[in-house]
Amino acid sequence: MAAFPFTIQATDGAARTGVLSTTRGEIRTPAFMPVGTAGTVKALTVDQVAATGADIILGNTYHLMLRPTAERVARLGGLHRFMRWNKPILTDSGGFQVMSLSKIAKVTEEAVTFASHIDGSRHVLSPERSMEIQADLLGSDIVMQLDELVALPAEESVVADAMRRSARWGQRCKAAFGQRDTQALFGIQQGGTAEHLRRESAQRLQEIGFHGYAIGGLAVGEGHEAMVEVLDFAPAQLPPERPRYLMGVGKPIDIVEAVWRGVDMFDCVLPTRSGRHGQAWTWDGPINLKNARFAEDESPLDPDSDVPASRDYSRAYLHHLVKADEILGQVLLSWHNIAFFQALMAEMRAAIAEGRLSAFRQASRARAAAAGSDSAAGTPG
Amino acid sequence: MAAFPFTIQATDGAARTGVLSTTRGEIRTPAFMPVGTAGTVKALTVDQVAATGADIILGNTYHLMLRPTAERVARLGGLHRFMRWNKPILTDSGGFQVMSLSKIAKVTEEAVTFASHIDGSRHVLSPERSMEIQADLLGSDIVMQLDELVALPAEESVVADAMRRSARWGQRCKAAFGQRDTQALFGIQQGGTAEHLRRESAQRLQEIGFHGYAIGGLAVGEGHEAMVEVLDFAPAQLPPERPRYLMGVGKPIDIVEAVWRGVDMFDCVLPTRSGRHGQAWTWDGPINLKNARFAEDESPLDPDSDVPASRDYSRAYLHHLVKADEILGQVLLSWHNIAFFQALMAEMRAAIAEGRLSAFRQASRARAAAAGSDSAAGTPG
Repeated sequence: MAAFPFTIQATDGAARTGVLSTTRGEIRTPAFMPVGTAGTVKALTVDQVAATGADIILGNTYHLMLRPTAERVARLGGLHRFMRWNKPILTDSGGFQVMSLSKIAKVTEEAVTFASHIDGSRHVLSPERSMEIQADLLGSDIVMQLDELVALPAEESVVADAMRRSARWGQRCKAAFGQRDTQALFGIQQGGTAEHLRRESAQRLQEIGFHGYAIGGLAVGEGHEAMVEVLDFAPAQLPPERPRYLMGVGKPIDIVEAVWRGVDMFDCVLPTRSGRHGQAWTWDGPINLKNARFAEDESPLDPDSDVPASRDYSRAYLHHLVKADEILGQVLLSWHNIAFFQALMAEMRAAIAEGRLSAFRQASRARAAAAGSDSAAGTPG
Repeated sequence: MAAFPFTIQATDGAARTGVLSTTRGEIRTPAFMPVGTAGTVKALTVDQVAATGADIILGNTYHLMLRPTAERVARLGGLHRFMRWNKPILTDSGGFQVMSLSKIAKVTEEAVTFASHIDGSRHVLSPERSMEIQADLLGSDIVMQLDELVALPAEESVVADAMRRSARWGQRCKAAFGQRDTQALFGIQQGGTAEHLRRESAQRLQEIGFHGYAIGGLAVGEGHEAMVEVLDFAPAQLPPERPRYLMGVGKPIDIVEAVWRGVDMFDCVLPTRSGRHGQAWTWDGPINLKNARFAEDESPLDPDSDVPASRDYSRAYLHHLVKADEILGQVLLSWHNIAFFQALMAEMRAAIAEGRLSAFRQASRARAAAAGSDSAAGTPG
C-alpha cells in the first residue's frame, strides 16, 4: 500500500498527537472532522469551515449516492471540486445511514438492498460498490470499508456474526480498493462491548492490513459509561503506528475520554445539529441561546477565538436571532460550534505535547459534573 | 438642520450619480439598500453583506420594536452595535409593516394602534414614537417619517386624505426629530398615481424641509406600467439637490427605469427573499436553480464577480443545495442576489458618469422583453 505517513510527535499516557499526511494536506491529530453530510457542512460555506482550523471534513456516501448521485459528482469533477473543499475528505461507507435512515429490504453476504428515504427508490450497496462510490466517483482521500452495524444492546452471537461479516467485507473492500497512491483505506473494528470480539475483530483487520483503523459500532445507544468501558480496551487492540478513528463521537467529554485512551480521529454531527437548534458549546458545557438569561448578555461566546461567530457577536444578538428563527442564528451557532470543537482538539494536542493531558481531562470531568451533565470540556491551557 | 451633504457628481438626462455623506460613511448613489429586517439581512453575516459593496442597509422599525424591542436594542448600544454593521443604516418608520403584517385596531390623527403579528400584543405607533424608536433607541443614520399608506387602487379622496395626513405627520416627525448633527430625516411623498396629489405632497414636504425625500405608496399592487407612469412625474416634483428614495422597489428593470427618471435610492426584500426560494438574479433575468437544466452546469452565476457566492460555486452545486433544501443554498443565493443588485447599481453609476445610461436602459428593456418578463437588467458595460 502507498505510504500515507502517520507521524506521532508526542505521547502522554495512551494519548498521542501527530500528523497524518495526505496529498491534499496534513491532518493534525487528535482531529475532529466536521460532517459535510450531502456535500455541505450544514449552513456553512467552506471558507467558514476552513476558518475554524478544520483539516479534514467527512462526507456521507449514503446521502451523496442518492442525491446528487455519485455518478453526477464524478462527472462534475469529484466531491472536492463539487463542494469547493480542497483539503482532505473522509467518506463513510454508507452502511450507517442505510441502517438508520433507509428502509432495508435485504441484507445478504453479498450486499445490502435498501429503499431511499427521499423517494423510496431501490439501491444496492456492496463492499465493491462502496469502494467504487467513495474512491472512484467521489474521489475521497480516506475511504471507509463497508461494515455491518448492530444496534446495542444485542445478543453476542448477533454481534459476533456482524463483526465477522464486517471483516469479510473489509477483505472485499481491500481487494476492490486495490493499490492507490493518493487514497487511504480504513478498516472498521466491530464487536459491540465484548472485549474478546473486539480483539478478534482487530486481529482480522490487521491481517488484511489498512492505512487506519476505526472503532465502529459505538455511540449507537449504549451510553457514555458503556462506551468509555469499551474504550478502555478497544484502541489498544489496534496497531499503535496507524491512526485510530472513533466513528460518530461525540460530546466534548466523550472525545476527551477517547483521546485519553489513544484515539486520534473523530466525527460527529453534534456541533452543526445543536447549532441549528440554538445550542452553543462552551468550555463550561452547552448553553441554549433561547434562554432569557442571554437576552441582554453582551459577551460573545468566546472572546479569545479567531472565528467571527465566536468572537464578534453578543449572546444577546444570538438570543434574538434564535428567538426570531433567523437563518443567521443557525449559521453563527453552527460556525461557533465547529470552531469550539476545533479549539478543543487544539487544546488537547497542546496538552499532549506538554504532558498535561491528565490535568486537562480531570478539569473536563469536573466541569462536566458541575454542568450537571456529561457535557463539558476542559479549560483551555 | 445639519449638513448631510449630497454631492451630485454627474447627470445623464434626469439620472444622477453622486455621494450622500453620513458620519458612518459615504453612500454612493444610485444606491440599493439590502433589507435587514429584524437586525439581520436574512441568512447573511454582516461581513458577507459588506463584501457585496453595500454602503447602507435598511432596518425595519416594526420588526425591531416588537422583537427584541427598541428599548432592548438601545440598552445593547443601538442597532449598529447590536448587529455589528458599522456603516450607515436607514430605518423605515414602521408604517408599512403595521399595514401589511399586523392587525390594525385603530388609525386616528394621533397614532396607529395595532396588534403584533407575533403574539397579538397591543402597540401604538405615533409620529413621535416612531422618531423616538428610530433616532433615539435604534440610532438610525437615516430616519423616515411616519406616513399613512393606501393600497392601490383606491378612491382619490382616500388617497388625498392619507397624503395630507402623511404631511401633517411629517411635520410632527420634524418637530420630534429636532436638531441632530449626525442623523438625517427623510419625508415621504404620497398621492397614489395622481400627479396633482403627488405635486401637492411634494410641496407640503418641501415647506417642512427634509434631508431627503422618499417616493412612497408605490409597489403596492399597481404594477410596473402604472409605477413607471408615476415615476414620469414624481421624482421631478422633489427638490433636485436632495436624495430621492423609491421605497420598496424592486426588480432590476424597475430600478433601471426609476434611476433613469432621477431616483437615487432603493430598498427591496426581493434579492434575499428570492434567494431563499432558489432564485438567482442574473444579467439575463431571474433563473430558478431548482430547474433540472442546471444539474450539471459547471458555470458559476457570475465569473466576473468578486463575491464568492457569485464567482466560486457552480450552478450544479447550487442546484443540488436547493434540491436538498440545504441552508447553504439559501445563504449563497441570498448573497449572490445582493451582490448582483450592488453590481447593477455600480454599472448604472458608471453608465451615468459616462453618459451612456440610455443605452444601458435600452439593453435592459430588450433583455427583459427577451426573458419573457419585466425582470431583466442591462448588460455590464
